[in-house]
Amino acid sequence: MRFGRIAHPDGMSFAVIDGDQDLIAKEVEGTPFTAPAYTGREWPLADVKLLAPMLPGKVVAIGRNYADHVAEVFKESAEHLPPTLFLKPSTAVVGPGNPIRIPDFATKVEFEGELAVVVSKPCKNVKAADWKSVVLGFTIVNDVSSRDLQFADGQWARAKGIDTFCPLGPWIETDIDSVNLDSLPIKARLTHEGQTALKQDSNSDQMIMKMGEIIEFITASMTLLPGDVICTGSPAGTAAMSPGDFIEIEIPGIGKLGNPVARA
Amino acid sequence: MRFGRIAHPDGMSFAVIDGDQDLIAKEVEGTPFTAPAYTGREWPLADVKLLAPMLPGKVVAIGRNYADHVAEVFKESAEHLPPTLFLKPSTAVVGPGNPIRIPDFATKVEFEGELAVVVSKPCKNVKAADWKSVVLGFTIVNDVSSRDLQFADGQWARAKGIDTFCPLGPWIETDIDSVNLDSLPIKARLTHEGQTALKQDSNSDQMIMKMGEIIEFITASMTLLPGDVICTGSPAGTAAMSPGDFIEIEIPGIGKLGNPVARA
Repeated sequence: MRFGRIAHPDGMSFAVIDGDQDLIAKEVEGTPFTAPAYTGREWPLADVKLLAPMLPGKVVAIGRNYADHVAEVFKESAEHLPPTLFLKPSTAVVGPGNPIRIPDFATKVEFEGELAVVVSKPCKNVKAADWKSVVLGFTIVNDVSSRDLQFADGQWARAKGIDTFCPLGPWIETDIDSVNLDSLPIKARLTHEGQTALKQDSNSDQMIMKMGEIIEFITASMTLLPGDVICTGSPAGTAAMSPGDFIEIEIPGIGKLGNPVARA
Repeated sequence: MRFGRIAHPDGMSFAVIDGDQDLIAKEVEGTPFTAPAYTGREWPLADVKLLAPMLPGKVVAIGRNYADHVAEVFKESAEHLPPTLFLKPSTAVVGPGNPIRIPDFATKVEFEGELAVVVSKPCKNVKAADWKSVVLGFTIVNDVSSRDLQFADGQWARAKGIDTFCPLGPWIETDIDSVNLDSLPIKARLTHEGQTALKQDSNSDQMIMKMGEIIEFITASMTLLPGDVICTGSPAGTAAMSPGDFIEIEIPGIGKLGNPVARA
């Protein structure tokens, strides 16, 4: 089941996004954390605006989780630079279609298409084998990163924490078993001056730390709360974006997350 | 005015903490963001429990903001390692008196006594000269840091983000002009095996990036929201803590923040 959060003529709601071609947003009462109680109101998806599907309390991210991306960004082998944990502020989160706004002082801003999970319940010390018991579902994140600030600062919080630098969506796929984490394509297409190029074309089978390990690793230190988002790392192919560009991340079986790029 | 958050026999409330010696907690309706409306209920402070004075949406921290601390931790001059920004997760926040719980895998956990501010309103692109217009008041933070994980990970989010690693309090001093930021003592006393030693004994006059610059720097990138907490950096004198210890941070004119140390 796909849970989205929508802005419609009367306000904002969570909705189940139904259909294959002509998608329908069926409004529900409450949140995705309970079984959907339909209000009976529905709209063609094209008539409403999808928002970020969750407003997370925290966004916990795993960096350096794909060996090919470690090599391209850090010029190092993943053996010497193992996966590491960082945080993105919730104020950076925006929804599908919302512009990524680049401030003047960020001179090399790159996209990073990633698989993300949304946490379903408060949890601590989760064992790897039990990861599904604390996950509401999957979504897509674009871990937008200003490479110049990332290396100048040493710490990544500012480079990856600028307002609008965490596009999230388009919705949460809650049918966890419908997604094969052992072989999940992750693609990113960048449109620049009218030309669209496939930039990221990888697969979750390249992840160094797997989903269960990630959740065990994080929850050994930090309590996760419902709605918290975990970003599982970017594969290779990241590249710089300019105002006027459009960046689309696709993970088949989950959806597409597309955002225009603008000047702040 | 000192705003605290208290647990009392009937629940939790915000309260104005009044008095000099025998402190009284005077319950208010609502939050510290509006003028206090007293309910008429009050308790001797000793009869209630002070909680963290705010549950922040995000905790933004400035690292390497005291030259003497940069030298002791990084063995480098602050000229080569300028201040940098990092985030602590809100799930690490605990109140005065709450144990700091050290997990097995953190083998060198140090205190860092710091001046903190609580944000009063949503803000972006605040100019240094206008910083007071977005600050609700001052409090104290202990930026507990696992040095082993800090250096092993490179990113500091895990080392400084473990549950209980962000003691905050004891309350928020909202009389901003009562605090002289040009000369504010910051002290930390560690009690180990019954012996108390003054470990940090510094002053805010040693801050590299001053309060206005900090808020201008952060809000150039990130929107701050009401209740967000900013940690302004630790002076020298940080040292390791062990289960059984007690750590107390004192900033005269604001208060004392004391926490026992325990095994997780």
